[in-house]
Amino acid sequence: MAKQVAAKAKKSVANDRGRHLGGKAAPAAKKSAAKKWVYQFKEGNKDMRDLLGGKGAGLAEMTRAKLPVPAGFTITTEACNASTAAGGKFPKGMWEQTLAAMKKVEKESGKKFGDPTNPLLVSVRSGAKFSMPGMMDTVLNLGLNSETLQGIEALTKNPRFAQDAYRRFIQMFGRIVMGVEGKKFDAILDGAKEKYHAKQDTDLDTNALKEVVAKYKELYQNEIGEEFPQDPYKQLELAIGAVFGSWMGKRAVDYRRINKIPDNLGTAVNVVTMVFGNMGDDSGTGVAFTRDPGTGENELFGEYLTNAQGEDVVAGIRTPLKIADLKDKNPQVYEEFRGLAQQMEEHYREMQDLEFTVERGKLYMLQTRTGKRTARAAVKIATDMVAEGLISKAEAVQRVEPNQVVQLLMPQFDDNSKTQAKTTGNFLAQGLNASPGAATGLAIFDPDTAEQLGREGKSVILVRYETSPEDVHGMYASKGILTQHGGATSHAAVVARGAGLPCVAGCEGIRVDEGGKCFSADGRQINQGDYISIDGGTGEVFAGEIQTILPDYDKATDLKLLLGWADDIRLQKSRKGMKNAPEVGVQVWANADYPRDARMARKFGAQGIGLCRTEHMFFETERLPIVQKMILAAGQATALDTAVMRLKDAVAKARADEKAKKDLPDLEEKLAAAEKQRRESPDVATYYGALEQLLPIQRGDFVGIFEAMEELPTVIRLIDPPLHEFLPSHEELLVQTTELRVRIEYMKKEGANTSSEETQLKEKEEMLRAVAGMKEANPMLGLRGCRLGITMPQITIMQTRAIIEAACELKNRGVDVHPEIMIPLVGHVNELKNQRDLLEAEAKKVMAEQGIEVEYKFGTMIETPRAALTAGQVAQYADFFSTGSNDLTQCTFAASRDDAEKGFLLKYVEDKVLPDNPFQVLDREGVGRLMRMAVEEGRKTNPTLECGICGEHGGEPSSIEFCHRIGLNYVSCSPFRVPVARLAGAQAALTPIAKDK
Amino acid sequence: MAKQVAAKAKKSVANDRGRHLGGKAAPAAKKSAAKKWVYQFKEGNKDMRDLLGGKGAGLAEMTRAKLPVPAGFTITTEACNASTAAGGKFPKGMWEQTLAAMKKVEKESGKKFGDPTNPLLVSVRSGAKFSMPGMMDTVLNLGLNSETLQGIEALTKNPRFAQDAYRRFIQMFGRIVMGVEGKKFDAILDGAKEKYHAKQDTDLDTNALKEVVAKYKELYQNEIGEEFPQDPYKQLELAIGAVFGSWMGKRAVDYRRINKIPDNLGTAVNVVTMVFGNMGDDSGTGVAFTRDPGTGENELFGEYLTNAQGEDVVAGIRTPLKIADLKDKNPQVYEEFRGLAQQMEEHYREMQDLEFTVERGKLYMLQTRTGKRTARAAVKIATDMVAEGLISKAEAVQRVEPNQVVQLLMPQFDDNSKTQAKTTGNFLAQGLNASPGAATGLAIFDPDTAEQLGREGKSVILVRYETSPEDVHGMYASKGILTQHGGATSHAAVVARGAGLPCVAGCEGIRVDEGGKCFSADGRQINQGDYISIDGGTGEVFAGEIQTILPDYDKATDLKLLLGWADDIRLQKSRKGMKNAPEVGVQVWANADYPRDARMARKFGAQGIGLCRTEHMFFETERLPIVQKMILAAGQATALDTAVMRLKDAVAKARADEKAKKDLPDLEEKLAAAEKQRRESPDVATYYGALEQLLPIQRGDFVGIFEAMEELPTVIRLIDPPLHEFLPSHEELLVQTTELRVRIEYMKKEGANTSSEETQLKEKEEMLRAVAGMKEANPMLGLRGCRLGITMPQITIMQTRAIIEAACELKNRGVDVHPEIMIPLVGHVNELKNQRDLLEAEAKKVMAEQGIEVEYKFGTMIETPRAALTAGQVAQYADFFSTGSNDLTQCTFAASRDDAEKGFLLKYVEDKVLPDNPFQVLDREGVGRLMRMAVEEGRKTNPTLECGICGEHGGEPSSIEFCHRIGLNYVSCSPFRVPVARLAGAQAALTPIAKDK
Repeated sequence: MAKQVAAKAKKSVANDRGRHLGGKAAPAAKKSAAKKWVYQFKEGNKDMRDLLGGKGAGLAEMTRAKLPVPAGFTITTEACNASTAAGGKFPKGMWEQTLAAMKKVEKESGKKFGDPTNPLLVSVRSGAKFSMPGMMDTVLNLGLNSETLQGIEALTKNPRFAQDAYRRFIQMFGRIVMGVEGKKFDAILDGAKEKYHAKQDTDLDTNALKEVVAKYKELYQNEIGEEFPQDPYKQLELAIGAVFGSWMGKRAVDYRRINKIPDNLGTAVNVVTMVFGNMGDDSGTGVAFTRDPGTGENELFGEYLTNAQGEDVVAGIRTPLKIADLKDKNPQVYEEFRGLAQQMEEHYREMQDLEFTVERGKLYMLQTRTGKRTARAAVKIATDMVAEGLISKAEAVQRVEPNQVVQLLMPQFDDNSKTQAKTTGNFLAQGLNASPGAATGLAIFDPDTAEQLGREGKSVILVRYETSPEDVHGMYASKGILTQHGGATSHAAVVARGAGLPCVAGCEGIRVDEGGKCFSADGRQINQGDYISIDGGTGEVFAGEIQTILPDYDKATDLKLLLGWADDIRLQKSRKGMKNAPEVGVQVWANADYPRDARMARKFGAQGIGLCRTEHMFFETERLPIVQKMILAAGQATALDTAVMRLKDAVAKARADEKAKKDLPDLEEKLAAAEKQRRESPDVATYYGALEQLLPIQRGDFVGIFEAMEELPTVIRLIDPPLHEFLPSHEELLVQTTELRVRIEYMKKEGANTSSEETQLKEKEEMLRAVAGMKEANPMLGLRGCRLGITMPQITIMQTRAIIEAACELKNRGVDVHPEIMIPLVGHVNELKNQRDLLEAEAKKVMAEQGIEVEYKFGTMIETPRAALTAGQVAQYADFFSTGSNDLTQCTFAASRDDAEKGFLLKYVEDKVLPDNPFQVLDREGVGRLMRMAVEEGRKTNPTLECGICGEHGGEPSSIEFCHRIGLNYVSCSPFRVPVARLAGAQAALTPIAKDK
Repeated sequence: MAKQVAAKAKKSVANDRGRHLGGKAAPAAKKSAAKKWVYQFKEGNKDMRDLLGGKGAGLAEMTRAKLPVPAGFTITTEACNASTAAGGKFPKGMWEQTLAAMKKVEKESGKKFGDPTNPLLVSVRSGAKFSMPGMMDTVLNLGLNSETLQGIEALTKNPRFAQDAYRRFIQMFGRIVMGVEGKKFDAILDGAKEKYHAKQDTDLDTNALKEVVAKYKELYQNEIGEEFPQDPYKQLELAIGAVFGSWMGKRAVDYRRINKIPDNLGTAVNVVTMVFGNMGDDSGTGVAFTRDPGTGENELFGEYLTNAQGEDVVAGIRTPLKIADLKDKNPQVYEEFRGLAQQMEEHYREMQDLEFTVERGKLYMLQTRTGKRTARAAVKIATDMVAEGLISKAEAVQRVEPNQVVQLLMPQFDDNSKTQAKTTGNFLAQGLNASPGAATGLAIFDPDTAEQLGREGKSVILVRYETSPEDVHGMYASKGILTQHGGATSHAAVVARGAGLPCVAGCEGIRVDEGGKCFSADGRQINQGDYISIDGGTGEVFAGEIQTILPDYDKATDLKLLLGWADDIRLQKSRKGMKNAPEVGVQVWANADYPRDARMARKFGAQGIGLCRTEHMFFETERLPIVQKMILAAGQATALDTAVMRLKDAVAKARADEKAKKDLPDLEEKLAAAEKQRRESPDVATYYGALEQLLPIQRGDFVGIFEAMEELPTVIRLIDPPLHEFLPSHEELLVQTTELRVRIEYMKKEGANTSSEETQLKEKEEMLRAVAGMKEANPMLGLRGCRLGITMPQITIMQTRAIIEAACELKNRGVDVHPEIMIPLVGHVNELKNQRDLLEAEAKKVMAEQGIEVEYKFGTMIETPRAALTAGQVAQYADFFSTGSNDLTQCTFAASRDDAEKGFLLKYVEDKVLPDNPFQVLDREGVGRLMRMAVEEGRKTNPTLECGICGEHGGEPSSIEFCHRIGLNYVSCSPFRVPVARLAGAQAALTPIAKDK
């Protein structure tokens, strides 16, 4: 009969739109040569997801495990790809194999496809490797036609059921396979319900359904231009073709693009004997998780609908039972299912998401797959399963997505409260999810007010067009940050992540008016002091208050247990044999500028401080004026210092050199004059005065951090940013001086006294001149980093003194300290050498004064490409390297963190010009190549070189994996990401390192 | 006797200051093991400059060539280094070898050192590998004491001569060796002259000189604290030690630092038998070049002083004879010297700088070395010597310093006129020598006036604080550029070099007040319209006019001859066997933005255009407003374009896809709405209107360039700079709007009509908003380069069309064109692919419209580190790579061209933190490593990849050598540097390529 059907199919297909003609008509002689396109369920297993898709592999595995699975088979993903490549034609041999597989299904089920007396009906389901919305899902009851309908009626002795099944089939086939609009079918059904005063579908009787079937067929004929296909094999062929076609449908392609799933995976097609959950009250259908996917509790979680097919559960027409309630309603089925569910979970050693149907009391399993779950559930399930002996600790560690962990530490919106905010129209705008967590508080538009209110205990959200280092005190006093402008690595985002503050950045849907102290969004205006709420995990911004819940890390016992295992794994010998690299996996350190950050980092399990930015300390309100004074006097003071120093050298040389003796009086005179000028210079007084004021403050900072980090290494980076970041804004000064100038002009005309304005103008103009003199076209590439310490050595000296004095003080108190002093932005080995000489001299001096030896390391950031390219030289003067991956990415791409995201980077990622935002996920090919070069060549010169990373990437899982692969000693990230890194580092340690690039 | 003297020396030294004790007292037994520290002249030769210094090698070579050289020997540079290392102690064995050498000299001369009857006198001269001021020069007559003085008197029968010699010796020894102030000796001599009414030294008689000698000795005793040394060996020892010591003297160290001479070369010491040019009128001394060092004419050039020692020539006490005049005065000596000079020139095959002395009619040669010469002379001598058969063409090419060549092409100050300016106090300040050549003209402070006056034929020098692209029209209309601010690669410098305009940049000694149209310097004020003069080759700035002379390249036949040979050498198979590189040396291309530049480049021998910056065309006065309109409308217009494009795609897909058919009406409706919106958008109209206006202008530019470059390749780079460079200044707009706002406030108070001001304010505010919206924190790393073409594809399309249409037009006219289209700032291969797709589609379209096929190449700049690091991928989509070494240097160092030089780079070079300014001399270790990587890995993927360089380094000799070594096909530089590059490329081709990095 297959031959006859195939011939029929061939003929009917000639009238078709030419789709899916495949190798159907291929001569039988060549059949043996054809590839295997079709697998019986019993031929597959769970490891064949690539070929059979997730669903097919699950059905195969269940079949192998002797679970009650209806007979069926899977057409492979390769067949889909071959068909796509051939413009829709089935590949050679596929159709013949399908027909043969149908024969076997007929044999197993004892029914025959298209047999009017004992008809076989099947479902056709797509099933890619990853579950994917946007693709054709399921066609049920395929094989029904006017003849087989009779057979079903006879067999079930339920004419209404038969008509209902036929009605459903025509609708599904018409809509899903042939693309007829669903609402047109709905209109017919609704018409019938109205006509027969039926409230629900189930209220329609057999005759009413017969009428619906007839109208459905008419609709189909009108829409498609030909009769509803009566040949079951034609039905099957079209359905398979539609599944294949849906793989390249727009929604599916879009979904894959967003979720970074390659296009070349293809989808498999599963053809399964129909079982019916709608054959009466002893039938039903359900979906269930083997554990609670929200909490991770070890109990069945799901729903069951009596007398229904799967689609009814989804459609939500009737309220289903909770699966637990089935225990009472149908204990036999419940117990059987519970047993099978447990069997599957044990079989897969993983929480399963199951679909099943009960047909007249008999349970059939239709799907099993790994269940999705929340972060909380993921952690609990993983640790529970270890306790249950189901999985190993290593497996548990691999079961949790590192990025999810952050969610467990941050304040979250209460779900109900957030839903309510959405439904009451309080959603304002969507920005970048720059730093996770939720916050609610008063919108405040300037950092000073934010700080003041914060001190008063008020909850504040600082709203700025964008933030700058001068805002830091206000940021720290706030519960969250909202900016209109700036990307995922903007100042606001970086500071917020570092401080563990929720932040929505680059929210271009709001218009911030800092002067007017308000912002507008979605037609509404939010004023200073109005409540707003932000969700840094999603980027949402709301008007009004939303209740938040704060998780307590100390009580997160499951998480702490899991992270403990992760640490054990991470610090195993996972890099044994890797040349010149530590044998164990990466340590996790944290970036922390303040003692409070350091303590938090330590609480979260940090093994050191990888980056303490000393300049952030300078921005605090009471310190900034001192810093500004220092900066403005630095140029002149340094010039005078240099002059004196050079003359001193000359005098010393002349004294030692017989021949130059004659120049001595002249040189001594000049030196005296220079010393006098230096002594009397107000700039020198200001400069050294400011340095003297800053010294105890910095020392105090370091004392606090060293205390918090007792016994652990602490990397302190010397001053890095361009100095004008500490000064008032050039633009503001321009506006202020212009305004004053014009005002004075008019006031004079009016005869008013302008002396106060003129004094003010003079001061402002002086400041403007100073600020303009330090203005740079591209400050990121200007006078910053070690260039400051080289051109203004007193700053390096002061900072060194503060560090060593602090270390001495603590050693005196018996505290074990491990300072590592780091020089930023080195590009040439001589820069490092210069700073090392300066620093070692001062450190020695301080230690001599204090009578205490402090062991410290000296190292450098690797953040310019040149430092990486000449790492072999640089390593001669460094005890450690720390990759500054933000700056390194910036220079390698020639893309500024401040501008690129807004300007083009986000568009690049959207348009797939770049696979990822390189400021978020480390670019392995470019930046990574430099990092690898630095580590390998640095260790060649200096085998004990300690290598780490302290850029944003240090807390990003994929980047951490790369850091592990190139042999870094540690990754350093913001305190809140320490748990993420601990987990990601462990997962990296569990991934074998191939000899890749 | 030597033993006795040595013993004496040892004893005397014990009372000494402990210097230079060396191995003098070492046991004789160990003598044989000592290193060879001392070479007789006949033991050395001209190739031993490292060991014997320049002077020693010359004396040795002359001795070997049997020239009349007084007997003597050289103590090696190694001895100097060993002595320096030992804190002044002579190395083991050196003194013994010196004593032995003295024995041989005694034997040769038949005199004895310290012998009262027949005394040997010697000169002691320093002689490093390179001639170096600041070191001890020469002590003459060493060996004289009260006893030997008698011998000299007896031998010469000239007591006056003997006293004078002694007098000179004490003075020289006291001053040079022992550091007694020279003026103290002078005072004594002057006193004697006064006492005896002598006008000149020669007027003093024997008795007077005796008195002087006595007083000199007294002075010596008072100053040094011991008697003038009577032991000739002690004199010798002290003199040798002083030469060694002078190597590390401050002035010598400074000189080496400035001239990049390593400190570890050391100096040699030459001990030479004295001959006397002051023994009467049959004696004399002279210095001479074998050819004219100023013009290169083949005739002796120098001076001769009768009855004098060498020091008298230098002191300029009497006016010497021109050497040519010696022909008449003393034909025998002249002929003999001429013969020896010619012999030496032929021997060295190089122009020589000679010193000689005639003692009683007998000629002695005292020095020969390669003579310094001007650029003009260098070229003439090199070509003449080829014509004379003295040297090969290859040698001639190596004889000229490439950087000198630029001098031959640029206008120069007339020497007298410049000297006069200096002596009359017109020198104002010293800046950076940013672009060579001299210019004189009216100081003008704004580009518009400069352009206007330039058109009127006035000579103008544009003076700015710093220049920006908006100044270009004014710069081109000027004869020279002077800026207060900016380094060697500042905008002013780059444009000036490109245009062949003299430029003094970063002249911080002047204070420019652009508003006030004046600058102040050295206490003077220069106003708009005052004459000034600048020398871009030296960085000097003068008030007033200085006459200039303009060389004519077409008439520079010697230079053209030499460059022709250079071309032949350059394009020989000098890189045979180098993997994947062209076998011949680098071609020389030029950077040229305008047809006039292209023609000039061609005249100077360019083989192609390596960089035509299309955006420079946008800055011209009549075009800028169109460009501004385009930029301001681009964002909105592109967004609307994108929306329509996406909807069109969706509609097309829906039409093709059965299942999506139902969405079609909705999509079509949306598309119609979007098209309507786009159609009606004023931004779209402006944007496309501006593009349409720019198209024919750009096409015209390309027609001109292609015409000028007929048959030669022409690389056109698509738009590159951040767009806000084309817009008005943000700061100016801030000031203007602030001023207007305050004015309106007061005018309203006064009841005045403000409507005109308000309109103005509104316009300015609108522009301010637009400009602020495009403002970037680090524009160099922002929205520029290919990022423009990717986010605003219409610009790429317009530029492609202009290029291909221009090429078609010329092909129609039978002109052979070779366009190469270049994409800037690529960092990821996908960026290049995106632009290639866009460009190829448009090019195809234009060619179809025109019915003409144009062959063109498509390539990319390599100017981000990432492009170099992923060159293997990038090369898949590129026919050529062109290193943008400016940007690549910028990113590799993380140092902005705009800020670094001012901020720290110049200080770095001064303090030796960096060996060179990497924006001038290519950094081989960092930037060069990336370049090599790009070339090697690019050619691995694409073996026919054409590789070049178009940054500033393309015209710098050391960088060109590196480009040759890594296998670039061409270097491209500004037109005026093409001859430099032709020569440097040839020199590189003559340097064997070792397998280095």
